[in-house]
Amino acid sequence: MENRDSELTIPIPARDSDQIPVLFEQAAALAGFDEEVEKKREETLPTVPTIPYSVSNSMPSSPSGLRYALHQLQGHVYNSERKSCLSNVMTSHVEKKVVTVGKFHHSQPLETKINIFPDQSQRHARLDRRFDSLKTWSGKLERQLSNLRGSFPEEQTEDSSLTSSMDDSTSGDEENARPIPVHRYFDALEGPELDTLKPSEISGLPEDLEWPFLLRFPISSFGICLGVGSQAMLWKTLSTSEPMAFLRISPIVNLVLWIIALVLTTLVFTTYGLKCIFYYEAVKREYYHPVRVNFFFAPWIACLFLALGMPPSIVEILHPCVWYIFMSPILCLELKIYGQWMSGGQRRLSKVANPSNHLSIVGNFVGALLGASMGLKEGPIFFFAIGLAHYIVLFVTLYQRLPTNESLPKELHPVFFLFVAAPSVACTAWAKICGDFDYGSRIAYFIAIFLYFSLVVRVNFFWGFKFSLAWWAYTFPMTGASIATIAYAAEVRNPLTQALSVVLSGVSTITVTSLLVTTVLYAFVFKKLFPNDDLIGVMKHKKNANIQFVKRVMPMVTTRTTKK
Amino acid sequence: MENRDSELTIPIPARDSDQIPVLFEQAAALAGFDEEVEKKREETLPTVPTIPYSVSNSMPSSPSGLRYALHQLQGHVYNSERKSCLSNVMTSHVEKKVVTVGKFHHSQPLETKINIFPDQSQRHARLDRRFDSLKTWSGKLERQLSNLRGSFPEEQTEDSSLTSSMDDSTSGDEENARPIPVHRYFDALEGPELDTLKPSEISGLPEDLEWPFLLRFPISSFGICLGVGSQAMLWKTLSTSEPMAFLRISPIVNLVLWIIALVLTTLVFTTYGLKCIFYYEAVKREYYHPVRVNFFFAPWIACLFLALGMPPSIVEILHPCVWYIFMSPILCLELKIYGQWMSGGQRRLSKVANPSNHLSIVGNFVGALLGASMGLKEGPIFFFAIGLAHYIVLFVTLYQRLPTNESLPKELHPVFFLFVAAPSVACTAWAKICGDFDYGSRIAYFIAIFLYFSLVVRVNFFWGFKFSLAWWAYTFPMTGASIATIAYAAEVRNPLTQALSVVLSGVSTITVTSLLVTTVLYAFVFKKLFPNDDLIGVMKHKKNANIQFVKRVMPMVTTRTTKK
Amino acid sequence: MENRDSELTIPIPARDSDQIPVLFEQAAALAGFDEEVEKKREETLPTVPTIPYSVSNSMPSSPSGLRYALHQLQGHVYNSERKSCLSNVMTSHVEKKVVTVGKFHHSQPLETKINIFPDQSQRHARLDRRFDSLKTWSGKLERQLSNLRGSFPEEQTEDSSLTSSMDDSTSGDEENARPIPVHRYFDALEGPELDTLKPSEISGLPEDLEWPFLLRFPISSFGICLGVGSQAMLWKTLSTSEPMAFLRISPIVNLVLWIIALVLTTLVFTTYGLKCIFYYEAVKREYYHPVRVNFFFAPWIACLFLALGMPPSIVEILHPCVWYIFMSPILCLELKIYGQWMSGGQRRLSKVANPSNHLSIVGNFVGALLGASMGLKEGPIFFFAIGLAHYIVLFVTLYQRLPTNESLPKELHPVFFLFVAAPSVACTAWAKICGDFDYGSRIAYFIAIFLYFSLVVRVNFFWGFKFSLAWWAYTFPMTGASIATIAYAAEVRNPLTQALSVVLSGVSTITVTSLLVTTVLYAFVFKKLFPNDDLIGVMKHKKNANIQFVKRVMPMVTTRTTKK
Repeated sequence: MENRDSELTIPIPARDSDQIPVLFEQAAALAGFDEEVEKKREETLPTVPTIPYSVSNSMPSSPSGLRYALHQLQGHVYNSERKSCLSNVMTSHVEKKVVTVGKFHHSQPLETKINIFPDQSQRHARLDRRFDSLKTWSGKLERQLSNLRGSFPEEQTEDSSLTSSMDDSTSGDEENARPIPVHRYFDALEGPELDTLKPSEISGLPEDLEWPFLLRFPISSFGICLGVGSQAMLWKTLSTSEPMAFLRISPIVNLVLWIIALVLTTLVFTTYGLKCIFYYEAVKREYYHPVRVNFFFAPWIACLFLALGMPPSIVEILHPCVWYIFMSPILCLELKIYGQWMSGGQRRLSKVANPSNHLSIVGNFVGALLGASMGLKEGPIFFFAIGLAHYIVLFVTLYQRLPTNESLPKELHPVFFLFVAAPSVACTAWAKICGDFDYGSRIAYFIAIFLYFSLVVRVNFFWGFKFSLAWWAYTFPMTGASIATIAYAAEVRNPLTQALSVVLSGVSTITVTSLLVTTVLYAFVFKKLFPNDDLIGVMKHKKNANIQFVKRVMPMVTTRTTKK
Repeated sequence: MENRDSELTIPIPARDSDQIPVLFEQAAALAGFDEEVEKKREETLPTVPTIPYSVSNSMPSSPSGLRYALHQLQGHVYNSERKSCLSNVMTSHVEKKVVTVGKFHHSQPLETKINIFPDQSQRHARLDRRFDSLKTWSGKLERQLSNLRGSFPEEQTEDSSLTSSMDDSTSGDEENARPIPVHRYFDALEGPELDTLKPSEISGLPEDLEWPFLLRFPISSFGICLGVGSQAMLWKTLSTSEPMAFLRISPIVNLVLWIIALVLTTLVFTTYGLKCIFYYEAVKREYYHPVRVNFFFAPWIACLFLALGMPPSIVEILHPCVWYIFMSPILCLELKIYGQWMSGGQRRLSKVANPSNHLSIVGNFVGALLGASMGLKEGPIFFFAIGLAHYIVLFVTLYQRLPTNESLPKELHPVFFLFVAAPSVACTAWAKICGDFDYGSRIAYFIAIFLYFSLVVRVNFFWGFKFSLAWWAYTFPMTGASIATIAYAAEVRNPLTQALSVVLSGVSTITVTSLLVTTVLYAFVFKKLFPNDDLIGVMKHKKNANIQFVKRVMPMVTTRTTKK
Repeated sequence: MENRDSELTIPIPARDSDQIPVLFEQAAALAGFDEEVEKKREETLPTVPTIPYSVSNSMPSSPSGLRYALHQLQGHVYNSERKSCLSNVMTSHVEKKVVTVGKFHHSQPLETKINIFPDQSQRHARLDRRFDSLKTWSGKLERQLSNLRGSFPEEQTEDSSLTSSMDDSTSGDEENARPIPVHRYFDALEGPELDTLKPSEISGLPEDLEWPFLLRFPISSFGICLGVGSQAMLWKTLSTSEPMAFLRISPIVNLVLWIIALVLTTLVFTTYGLKCIFYYEAVKREYYHPVRVNFFFAPWIACLFLALGMPPSIVEILHPCVWYIFMSPILCLELKIYGQWMSGGQRRLSKVANPSNHLSIVGNFVGALLGASMGLKEGPIFFFAIGLAHYIVLFVTLYQRLPTNESLPKELHPVFFLFVAAPSVACTAWAKICGDFDYGSRIAYFIAIFLYFSLVVRVNFFWGFKFSLAWWAYTFPMTGASIATIAYAAEVRNPLTQALSVVLSGVSTITVTSLLVTTVLYAFVFKKLFPNDDLIGVMKHKKNANIQFVKRVMPMVTTRTTKK
């Protein structure tokens, strides 16, 4: 136990503690508080002469978290003035606490007493570097630089402690280069999409301020493109499909929706492109996340949707080359992801199975549909076959709900609507490949419809979940089911199928609309459409013992100092 | 440990103990016996001043079980006079014990001494209410009444203790309304069909007398209808199928069997209908049982069999409306059951997978077969598709034998013959849908035949199991395989296939006949065709500590008192 | 703890210890060493009057292992003279140690002191019997004989201890007849093919000398026949397939390869046949091994390959009867193996799933292919259907990588290439059955190709594994994929498919060639093509405690004695 404590890498920026010993001495003198704590520690660590140091070690980044709350964020979009005012007001108040706490855990002698209150600019420069570890080149480059400046050991310690709180890379670049092991995501996060930090965990990034916008912009934002793009497809189908002719839908709706989808997709692509450029490490963290990785299929599926929903007035038939361009990243991702499922390790299917895996399957069917629409033959069957094989595996695995599926939501959640996606798109894809709506298409269609109803009758399970951008991705299966129903109605034309088509299309449009309203509300009223993306703050090693200590001691210290 | 004891809800009907303190005082004075026990308790519960009460608490319903043995059952069908005589004879003898035991665990003062030997009629009325908790309206209604009678606290305590021994509903109606959690079934029951109480468990209903007939009439009785109904189908096929013409089977056989099946089905339907009316709570307990719930498909499959086996001399072609009537409950049940598999919770597939789940799949194929025979097109494919998707899931899950499948028999058991059901019915259904015995039908047929042989070569594993009514449900897969073989023989006509048809039909008929003989033997000779249905006696919380105590102390007390 | 020790069956041949008490007494007198050990033992076994015996018991076969190292093997092929010289040289040196150790653990009185150094011939006769337990009739027969000689109790003990070290059959014939429980294989072995003894385990056979050739000749040797036979098929296809005509492959290549394959197959069949005759017990041990058992399909698949690759110049069309002969053992094995998967017990699929299970599936498709090539119809579909059903189960199970799959390699390994086998053969088989390369064949083909590429991009995972004969079995999937590609190229003829055919054929031929070179190197240069086959040496019960003891004490004893 004693040894563990000192083995833990030290997340606290030691420099803070260097700064303010005086105040602490006063606080400590107040009520013999520290003796008490010290004693407790001695009971558990009886033979260690390095106690003071060990205590100092076990003080984690939480004080730093507090500290960062003092400073205005220099993010790209951060402009909520109300907040920044508030934080300014809070500064002087919280500053004291931090100062006190910092000292309390630092028993180094007083030589470092100089520079207790460094000027703000200097601190800003430092603090800003808190997000550096996620920046594209900074991680390695800056560390190397600081290593070159090796003559300033203090500086270097500081530097490494800064980055280590994020990466725990005290052992150098190689350690840093290694991705976070997947079990850390499972350990540190919770929630149906595995994107909420557990209360027992601390983030590598400051939890109490808003991060730079790009860091808060997740890959799941492409869900919006999926939602709107599939609506464009739906309204194209509604306006062109013969059994829906009685609705007299104007092709303008398709055109408008398609342009909106195009604009949105471009926007999201650009923004995420910027994230790739500026915060490549953060993108990597999303990529290593066992659930989030599936959303890396979303951009390409969104492109496929755009191609499929393209208004006939713009282009009648696309060049096959478009298909090859869009399908190559999907194929590469599949080789990677399916390979991980099969090849063991921590990302094997029996561990990571989650309805969002359907996103990695459905691309095959959407691709097959587009390819078949373009008149290709073998390529679509190729993707259809891959999709079918892996869909069976995934369907069985998800239906079984193995107890080892750590990332599978305990209860129903909107993400389960992805269950409907694969069979409904497979149905239309197969119908296109074969040229008619045969038994295969019918079987896929009926499976989709049954799953749809099976979820709809449980719709009351779906309330009460925290809204997230990822929900957009869960609307396109509904739209897919509507499109499949229209295709089915074209084959089996009777009032029932036509009514079903209208109802499902209506439901899907209403869902998308209400999601749009919610999104707008979150974006402009609540201003929390892009909350901090906890999963990129997960640290490589748990700092658990520390938290316990902080949580126990912090309030006591704080109360005392503020009183005084 | 001390607290646990007192937290346990009190299953013992306190009123009994109220009745007979005198006798007990004599018994207790006999040998200072109770001091001994008390001492033992004090050793384990050193600091508890509430010991007497705690002791009283931990005395469970077992004495009540004994007590009930004294009284004649007022069940609906209970008329075995031999038994009732016996129980009368036993009354005076056992009465004493109960009386003693009751007192021993009750340390309330002696105010309640009145009414030691209440007149029989009064007691009867009370005792009968032991099964009340399972009656349709009694549970809530009576409790509400007794609450109104609140001025008689004693009466109320009595009432709640009565029902609580069954439902543990001390916290009121809401607690009572909640179904038994599924893990209790897994914990408390054992056996391949999960219907035998573990030795360590005690039943909420008296274990040592025969319950009312309706309570002992399980939903698996519909298995008989499945068995006989499918025989009617088989002989219809034998008499009408062209490749079997050489056997010259008279259509009379079909007619006779069909009438028998019709009568049986009506009978079972009526009886179970009565159970639903009078013991709705017991039906709910069957419904919540993870294995038994699958038998809720049996009534509707039996109806489908009746429709399929209907002699051509009666009706040539049924009205499609019949199909819709029979398929709607199946669809509703499927939405419920498959949804439970998928949606997590305690009833997820990786926990409840059991060959009897095939019953919930096979309905789809039987329905598809009937629908296709009637000339319907889309409906049958709909059910075929649902069946196929879930059959793949179930087939893989059962074949894998996940260690989490708590209800899967450890070794082979007749229930495994259900493996043959789905593919063989699917084969004939698909042949009817397509209009010819194509590759799909052949594949399903060969899978069925392989599974059949795979079980037949292991037939020696199937001996030595306790007969149960559920076995009837395991005969229809054999019949289904015979029918599929006849259909195959019509397609591939040669002596081999014809011989196989005859052999399989023979085996199926012989099995049904021998099961019939066994059933008759059990019904009229052994008179234990309907044993107590343990699973409806499962209690919401385990009363384990109590049992230990009872098992240890009871014999001592009993011996002492009877000696005296 | 004490009891366990004495319950353990006695693996040590007691006679050795009988032989050399004198030397030991000297050694023991040296430093009071044994008292020390004795004392230690007494601490753990305080109340056992049978200590001396128990101590003697707990000395396992390791000393015997040492002892066997002294003697020349009387195996069938053992002729490496260098080694035998070495062992002669070592004899006198090691002899002493053995002698000492043997005595040290034997505290029986000195009556058995006679015959300390028995003449070599006598000892040889005895030692040779070390492998007797694996011989076909010896086990039972000899024991019965020795039982008849019951008047010599000493002799009998000796005899049973001899065999018990292998079989632990102290309780008689029945115990001996029971196969080794499968969990022992999982416990005692490791590695992707579960064929390396764990360091903590000791073998029932001498680990430090080369066993008789037949014992070292595993069933996986048939992999060579699969590899070469499939090459014959490939070159037949290359020379006869129309889209490959531009290569102008001579049919001579096919003929030559086929003759080589025929010769190899005959050779391997003969050798393994001899093993069946002489070491039937060893064959049984291979058969009970959860991974190795799948290789029992290999001989029959090799025969099917021979039939498929038969040069057209020899026979144009085989008699169907050949098909029935080759398929019957496959069907029987499948009834056995698939039944084990389903019927629970220790060999259920969720435990034994391993890519080598594909061998038990692929036989169905190869059989279907051969049958369809011969013009049969129903038989091929029968096997295709069985194959399909079980392939789905296996594919899902392997892809899921359940944590219960104890024999599944942690990481990628050449055995994963078996994943490609089933779909690629299924593709050609289905094309043959249907008569054209339809959607079904295409789907199977594309699945195979995707899996192939999915493995190829991970090819760097496959380096660094210890070569084993089983690798040959992992080449035929590549060949199968090439053949399927050629069939596909015949359907979709364009430069791309033709190029792919050439590339895949080239890769497969190169792989086989390099494997051939490796095999030759191992056979004639390293002379370790057939290392000791650890898995047949697994003992029924672990001798773990003993090893600890031996490993701790042995060096001490040895040092002392040799010093002296």
